[in-house]
Amino acid sequence: MAATATAPAPDAQLRFPPPALGARPIDRAAWEAAFRHVRDETERRAAPLSPEDQQIQSMADASPTKWHRAHTTWFFEQFLLKAHVPHYRVFDERFFYLFNSYYVQAGPRAPRISRGLVTRPTCDEVTAYRAHVDREVGALIASADAATLAAVIAVLEIGLHHEQQHQELLLTDILHAFAQNPLAPVYDPGWRWPRPGQAARDRPAPPRGPSAPEAGPVALAPGIVQVGHAGEGFSFDNESPRHDVLLAPVAVDRALVTNGDWLEFMQDGGYAKPELWLSDGFLAAQAEGWEAPGYWRRRDGVWSSMTLAGVTAVDPALPVTHVSYYEADAFARWAGRDLPTEVEWEAACPQLGDAFGHVWQWTRSAYAAYPGYRPLPGALGEYNGKFMVSQFVLRGSSVATPLGHSRPTYRNFFYPHQRWQFTGLRLSQYRA
Amino acid sequence: MAATATAPAPDAQLRFPPPALGARPIDRAAWEAAFRHVRDETERRAAPLSPEDQQIQSMADASPTKWHRAHTTWFFEQFLLKAHVPHYRVFDERFFYLFNSYYVQAGPRAPRISRGLVTRPTCDEVTAYRAHVDREVGALIASADAATLAAVIAVLEIGLHHEQQHQELLLTDILHAFAQNPLAPVYDPGWRWPRPGQAARDRPAPPRGPSAPEAGPVALAPGIVQVGHAGEGFSFDNESPRHDVLLAPVAVDRALVTNGDWLEFMQDGGYAKPELWLSDGFLAAQAEGWEAPGYWRRRDGVWSSMTLAGVTAVDPALPVTHVSYYEADAFARWAGRDLPTEVEWEAACPQLGDAFGHVWQWTRSAYAAYPGYRPLPGALGEYNGKFMVSQFVLRGSSVATPLGHSRPTYRNFFYPHQRWQFTGLRLSQYRA
Amino acid sequence: MAATATAPAPDAQLRFPPPALGARPIDRAAWEAAFRHVRDETERRAAPLSPEDQQIQSMADASPTKWHRAHTTWFFEQFLLKAHVPHYRVFDERFFYLFNSYYVQAGPRAPRISRGLVTRPTCDEVTAYRAHVDREVGALIASADAATLAAVIAVLEIGLHHEQQHQELLLTDILHAFAQNPLAPVYDPGWRWPRPGQAARDRPAPPRGPSAPEAGPVALAPGIVQVGHAGEGFSFDNESPRHDVLLAPVAVDRALVTNGDWLEFMQDGGYAKPELWLSDGFLAAQAEGWEAPGYWRRRDGVWSSMTLAGVTAVDPALPVTHVSYYEADAFARWAGRDLPTEVEWEAACPQLGDAFGHVWQWTRSAYAAYPGYRPLPGALGEYNGKFMVSQFVLRGSSVATPLGHSRPTYRNFFYPHQRWQFTGLRLSQYRA
Amino acid sequence: MAATATAPAPDAQLRFPPPALGARPIDRAAWEAAFRHVRDETERRAAPLSPEDQQIQSMADASPTKWHRAHTTWFFEQFLLKAHVPHYRVFDERFFYLFNSYYVQAGPRAPRISRGLVTRPTCDEVTAYRAHVDREVGALIASADAATLAAVIAVLEIGLHHEQQHQELLLTDILHAFAQNPLAPVYDPGWRWPRPGQAARDRPAPPRGPSAPEAGPVALAPGIVQVGHAGEGFSFDNESPRHDVLLAPVAVDRALVTNGDWLEFMQDGGYAKPELWLSDGFLAAQAEGWEAPGYWRRRDGVWSSMTLAGVTAVDPALPVTHVSYYEADAFARWAGRDLPTEVEWEAACPQLGDAFGHVWQWTRSAYAAYPGYRPLPGALGEYNGKFMVSQFVLRGSSVATPLGHSRPTYRNFFYPHQRWQFTGLRLSQYRA
Repeated sequence: MAATATAPAPDAQLRFPPPALGARPIDRAAWEAAFRHVRDETERRAAPLSPEDQQIQSMADASPTKWHRAHTTWFFEQFLLKAHVPHYRVFDERFFYLFNSYYVQAGPRAPRISRGLVTRPTCDEVTAYRAHVDREVGALIASADAATLAAVIAVLEIGLHHEQQHQELLLTDILHAFAQNPLAPVYDPGWRWPRPGQAARDRPAPPRGPSAPEAGPVALAPGIVQVGHAGEGFSFDNESPRHDVLLAPVAVDRALVTNGDWLEFMQDGGYAKPELWLSDGFLAAQAEGWEAPGYWRRRDGVWSSMTLAGVTAVDPALPVTHVSYYEADAFARWAGRDLPTEVEWEAACPQLGDAFGHVWQWTRSAYAAYPGYRPLPGALGEYNGKFMVSQFVLRGSSVATPLGHSRPTYRNFFYPHQRWQFTGLRLSQYRA
Repeated sequence: MAATATAPAPDAQLRFPPPALGARPIDRAAWEAAFRHVRDETERRAAPLSPEDQQIQSMADASPTKWHRAHTTWFFEQFLLKAHVPHYRVFDERFFYLFNSYYVQAGPRAPRISRGLVTRPTCDEVTAYRAHVDREVGALIASADAATLAAVIAVLEIGLHHEQQHQELLLTDILHAFAQNPLAPVYDPGWRWPRPGQAARDRPAPPRGPSAPEAGPVALAPGIVQVGHAGEGFSFDNESPRHDVLLAPVAVDRALVTNGDWLEFMQDGGYAKPELWLSDGFLAAQAEGWEAPGYWRRRDGVWSSMTLAGVTAVDPALPVTHVSYYEADAFARWAGRDLPTEVEWEAACPQLGDAFGHVWQWTRSAYAAYPGYRPLPGALGEYNGKFMVSQFVLRGSSVATPLGHSRPTYRNFFYPHQRWQFTGLRLSQYRA
Repeated sequence: MAATATAPAPDAQLRFPPPALGARPIDRAAWEAAFRHVRDETERRAAPLSPEDQQIQSMADASPTKWHRAHTTWFFEQFLLKAHVPHYRVFDERFFYLFNSYYVQAGPRAPRISRGLVTRPTCDEVTAYRAHVDREVGALIASADAATLAAVIAVLEIGLHHEQQHQELLLTDILHAFAQNPLAPVYDPGWRWPRPGQAARDRPAPPRGPSAPEAGPVALAPGIVQVGHAGEGFSFDNESPRHDVLLAPVAVDRALVTNGDWLEFMQDGGYAKPELWLSDGFLAAQAEGWEAPGYWRRRDGVWSSMTLAGVTAVDPALPVTHVSYYEADAFARWAGRDLPTEVEWEAACPQLGDAFGHVWQWTRSAYAAYPGYRPLPGALGEYNGKFMVSQFVLRGSSVATPLGHSRPTYRNFFYPHQRWQFTGLRLSQYRA
Repeated sequence: MAATATAPAPDAQLRFPPPALGARPIDRAAWEAAFRHVRDETERRAAPLSPEDQQIQSMADASPTKWHRAHTTWFFEQFLLKAHVPHYRVFDERFFYLFNSYYVQAGPRAPRISRGLVTRPTCDEVTAYRAHVDREVGALIASADAATLAAVIAVLEIGLHHEQQHQELLLTDILHAFAQNPLAPVYDPGWRWPRPGQAARDRPAPPRGPSAPEAGPVALAPGIVQVGHAGEGFSFDNESPRHDVLLAPVAVDRALVTNGDWLEFMQDGGYAKPELWLSDGFLAAQAEGWEAPGYWRRRDGVWSSMTLAGVTAVDPALPVTHVSYYEADAFARWAGRDLPTEVEWEAACPQLGDAFGHVWQWTRSAYAAYPGYRPLPGALGEYNGKFMVSQFVLRGSSVATPLGHSRPTYRNFFYPHQRWQFTGLRLSQYRA
């Protein structure tokens, strides 16, 4: 993971979420530590960035670093402090409008595309905002009476997972911004991709099973399995309800598709053969001029790639990343294979290599509600459900995903044309 | 069905597909009759239209009537006559380029958006083109030797179903075109919606079960069922392979949502409440200024609608139509219900009312490949698979669907913002 | 001129405007003949076109043939018959909306871009509309009492010149439409460009001076000259008031720039050298992919051009046409010369070759009001003044300009990126 | 003027350009002082802005403050130091690409729209860049041998005027950026509009004539006058050659149009009456939703305006500003008056009030070359000529124009839809 590679966290032993999660009585100290841990991680990720870097929004899908820092703070102020602290002193009334993202029910909000135009408050003022809210949240955790503590912790927990999501976006957004700069700035000269079969330096072992892939694919037996979150530990509402599904006979590759594999696809003319592509996908590839994964650059016949460590040579052994769903789908067709469904991925997960901490893996499942799904009531219910159209589910987690934010039931989702995330793929095959 | 309402087909007794379908030996006469029946139906639908009407393309998604008439003819020339008639005399070499739609492997093609700019050939020349190809196909059916007859009929059958699809588009496209004209032209003054519980005048009974809805919903028992085409009779490749799926406990309404239901949604402010909508859906509704189904117009507080019979009053008892997926989804949320999945729809189909011949029914299933699906080889394989992204499946069939083109396993698909088809919905509900 | 080349007008002797113009008493018969002459010319130009051809609008700047025929008729109905015929029986009330172009004060109007979507009324109905209005106008000319005759003729005269403008657009618009068709239809196989130094076959001698260019440029002496219309004969309001201007010492070429000249510019890389271009012009050239004049096509290294006679070889001796202002300006810079101002053109006009009847000639004058200009009162005042921004003046007239519609003070105007008209250029040079 | 209001320049006595301009021998010290003066003024204007403020580009027409600071520095490095300093040590090679604006002949350049994405170099690095170039230029002025000094000073002088132009843009661009921020940040709380009849606090008297307007208009006698720069002192190439023009009899208002005048136009429905507008202008007004000058906001029926001092009440006595040409033209038509031509403005200039230092004044002259104009050779020739299309000339100068940058022959130019500059108007009238 990026920033921690150069600046190891003093509390690297601490794991998020805290061990006491869900336990009774609620461990106030553990939650307060978890809160500090997550909040500090955001600042560690922002630390290498100048005020100028933190200001810009390099495309409509991205957000400024400063905005990520402020918006995650707004979340605690809006949903935790305003609701549970009597006579709460708001830091700045105007921030409720400025730093709302898309919570319609939480009030009006600034247009997404203009986030990069808000130069005031400055980075320093956002730092003060964060400190103010951190103090207030800390005090609330410490002082909430028993009657409200459970409600407080329930929102706090969502807020921490929410902030972790923005930690990942912070890195992918700044990578996109830096990639627009002809000078190709370096976010962290010490940043490195984890090797296949290894976790990132400070990343815990994946939840289940070995990280190193065994040879061959994982063959899944047909039959009924359960998918979705089982109810222990945190999950987002879109992981529920846990429910039965029927598996088809399928084999899922233990290994991720690599840059080396992708170079073969390119050398075979994969980007120029419409018969390999979805119709919309080929139109997108033509319109965008895609002829390689995102951030790849060719000079003198050699491919390199813009990364958080600057421009580096493409390593054939590493997993391919910054590919869109359209590209992943075309690659699978070229290979005579499939992308797994999200159900197949989840069923195979314990036996997969590099399931977590390398690249998010496109599945061929459109993002949709599980049977019987109902969003949370109120503004927090806008978190997931309203995006259930035209996007695809990705499973696993990436090199940019913070500690404690990976689990087998996690459902990430992006549009099929998007590729600024650390998105890759693994293949599968139906068996007769 | 539109045109036949005023001009009953002389061969209304004939059913398509012919009874001998799949039988051995192949009944040449029956196939020749089926071919004539389908070809004639296209001309019947075009008959009320002037050369000017047949020329225009009123939006990128639509095509001119003249183009539909020529493109369906091209299909037979390209895939049947060129392949199976020795020394076939091409009608006009240039038509292979002009009237290819999207078959990349069949050669270059004119840009879709400029179909409306091709004034030559004229309608009369297209009529001559159709006559030429009809003669040649008739002769081929009559004279093909036994060794090639099976291959000929296989392509012929696809071509007939392909033409039937364009027959439906011909009506929905001209309705869109006429709706742009301030004079609101009438396609057929005798055109009428079928009443609920009744099939269109000349429409056969649906494949299974009663047309009239019984009271209450159809409760489906949880468990494994099979979906997909069973192998008898024609189907498109996307209906295969037939496979097992696991049903959740769900109840599917026997009745379609009506205009009266929709007026309640509108009166409750449904179009203005973002919390009811998918995020992309609300953006689309705002951008397009939707405040009612497509073609609805309010004058002096009364809603009427542009139809194939011109502008008529909105009848609360008829099924709502010309609604997008976004609207259908918002309506379901407003009603505290769901849209069924395509699997649920197919399982419930035998017990549904008005499943066929009224409106296509949005399901909440994204259009995707069945497990193990593989498209046909060659250019005909471009028919379905390459559109399996960002669209939703609709089931049933509509008032514009020609005879013999409805079946329980049929998978229609459109983008969630589209609403120029006869698209409606029925609701469902998961049971605890 | 196109249509007349194949269908010589029976009244080719008749000149428009009629000799009695402006004379007193008003010669009713001459005006009625002029009216018939102009109206017939429109129909002659439309005659080679099928209903399909007449329907389409191939870009926003163009209009359908059918619309030109109807709109010019609307003009007489709106401004002449409704105003001056008691109890006038309107042909179809709805046409007042449908066929208004841009006269805001004449009431609401259909959006310009959707003209091509109005398939009803059909061409035949427009023919009936024209006949109805022709009869009524004829009767009005014959029967108007002396008190109103002058007012009637004043509007009639504007209407005839207005219709002549649309006659030219009718040809340029159908040429654009046919150029979009991969079949490159032929409007008139007998259509030919006039040779340099010759007028079109049935074109009268230009108003003043010889048509054949003498050698060398026309040197204008510095000093005060008068420009603008002198008050005899018809003119549009934008040609007034006649006023003094001060000429700089300048020489204007007698000859037009030819295709041969333009090929030299192209061979010298003119389209690829930004230093030759206005900044906006180079952007337009890049965005549109211009590398030759409009409608030019290269096959096997040879240039041909889409014309009203179909695709023909580019003749180096003919004047270049279908060039935008941006291109004309770049050409002049490449040649180390200037484009003349409209004042310089008008002062040099009597001595210019091919001033009329070949190509409209770009001047470097932005289209603006003459000092003290005031538009006509009422809706007719919207004719010219409201377009006086961002366009450039062209002088002369083109091969498509109808008889009697050329004069030295005529100010045509188009945007600098437009090139679907018959637009060319001549060069000039300031003298020390 | 903005920044100096709060931070009076220590060298306010110094006038730019230096008195010795054009004199021989060249006064090195005076030029060095002028250089320092202009360079310091840029930094004074940037001083109130945070690194975040300096980073953003709030629309395609604007540029970041940081970019203005770097680009003006690039100009000296590119055209002065690289050309005249032997063995010049470039600050950073990559800046030649990054900070070129539109000088095609000076090499490739970054796309304009992405200026706001270049976060590195930071503001601090740009400060170092400026210091480096300042030192080098200072040394060059001091040490250039007599043979090259004249050439050095010629480029230096252009560079200083170039930088002054960017000083004005710096203020208008940051005002636009701040106006996008819901918090409406204040650039300078002490910033004030000069009162009518008064110059800005530190602004010198206009070049000729009294600042305070006398009553009534300036009547110009018809006849030949000379316009264009006479050859003393600096001018841009577009002000030449000086040439004779013939004046029509016209009267030009001594006073500027005020906010009070504009409120009358608004109250009379001026923004909603298409008959007052150019056709393109009304389309722009509708598309942009204009109903008042730029940056005006109405709350509770009261109009205020975003200014460099934040949101302040609209003062009816002050000149209206942030109006487009389209609006100025419509206002003149509403008033039954004209906008003056640039020639009329220049002829009337000595007798006009508030000609300089308040608002740029739209003329009705399209921006075009004077007769016989030829741009400078080489890249510096791209300065003016290539923009001579589709723009209008503005005369005078504004509250944001730096000292020494106003003169009667100065030709500023913008597109007719633009209004983020301090653009206003005065009226005129032709006399019979």
